[in-house]
Amino acid sequence: MKRISIDMDGVLANVYGQFLKMHAAEFGNVLTLEEMTGRPEHVAFPNVYKYVNSAGFFRTAPVIVGCQEVVRKLNDQYKIFIVSAAMEFPNSLTEKHDWLNEHFPFITWQQMVFCGSKEIIKADIMIDDHFKNLNFFTGETILFTQPHNKLADTLHHKRVDTWEEIEALLLS
Amino acid sequence: MKRISIDMDGVLANVYGQFLKMHAAEFGNVLTLEEMTGRPEHVAFPNVYKYVNSAGFFRTAPVIVGCQEVVRKLNDQYKIFIVSAAMEFPNSLTEKHDWLNEHFPFITWQQMVFCGSKEIIKADIMIDDHFKNLNFFTGETILFTQPHNKLADTLHHKRVDTWEEIEALLLS
Repeated sequence: MKRISIDMDGVLANVYGQFLKMHAAEFGNVLTLEEMTGRPEHVAFPNVYKYVNSAGFFRTAPVIVGCQEVVRKLNDQYKIFIVSAAMEFPNSLTEKHDWLNEHFPFITWQQMVFCGSKEIIKADIMIDDHFKNLNFFTGETILFTQPHNKLADTLHHKRVDTWEEIEALLLS
Repeated sequence: MKRISIDMDGVLANVYGQFLKMHAAEFGNVLTLEEMTGRPEHVAFPNVYKYVNSAGFFRTAPVIVGCQEVVRKLNDQYKIFIVSAAMEFPNSLTEKHDWLNEHFPFITWQQMVFCGSKEIIKADIMIDDHFKNLNFFTGETILFTQPHNKLADTLHHKRVDTWEEIEALLLS
């Protein structure tokens, strides 16, 4: 059974939804897609580090459209691991764990990985929105589109915009 | 640079010290080495699951003799990752993170991994006290002696009893 490493932030958890809401609360304006596109998160949202370190940021993140049902189906045909670089934000550890238990109750504790660098991850397929994780992975790589990576050359990665596309790619 | 996956409980953190103390507090007797040897932890300590789920269990665990200095030296010559199956005890996530920061301040967040199953780990060498982790690892395996594994056939793993032996093995 092939192993898939699935990222959380920006792939399962809609962190842009949180960024937009907190930025709007702070500055009074909702950024447009154009204002975010092609810009690293910390450039589009100057106070992003404050946001991700706020209590509740990860626990209350919305779920990205369509992922629950597709991950459930993938879980029957692949060995799924949810792999998050959570160590950068130690306050997030419990929040991320509780978020996964709420929104992905079929994912067991054996399938959760909170790490720092993802170079330690051994899998066949990696789904991620960050090049820093995909570029050093030796298996098949799927780049999940988010505003920060939207204009970038996809290199050797396969780009998908939605979970529907992942379903078509891996469950056809 | 070769990657080493180093387990926490029973390799860096002296969980037997905690088991013995809590068992003695509950039952009034300190188990002897003979009473623990060759027995799984939950057999030697019938209430071990209560202990590991107690607040402070991981945070206050003593450090295993000699490991800090050797890990510091290994950190100069290898890519070290501290890999703990922490997901089994979600309350432990923050405690383990804080424990590592206190006792191994030279280990960065990039080098910490809290997982469930260790089959997701890609490294060259794994140091662990549990066969369930070592048996499925394809690199070099080092079994760290603890009472629960002391009588077992080491299979293809190299057994070490102390961090001094690890130093001799990997830093000679």
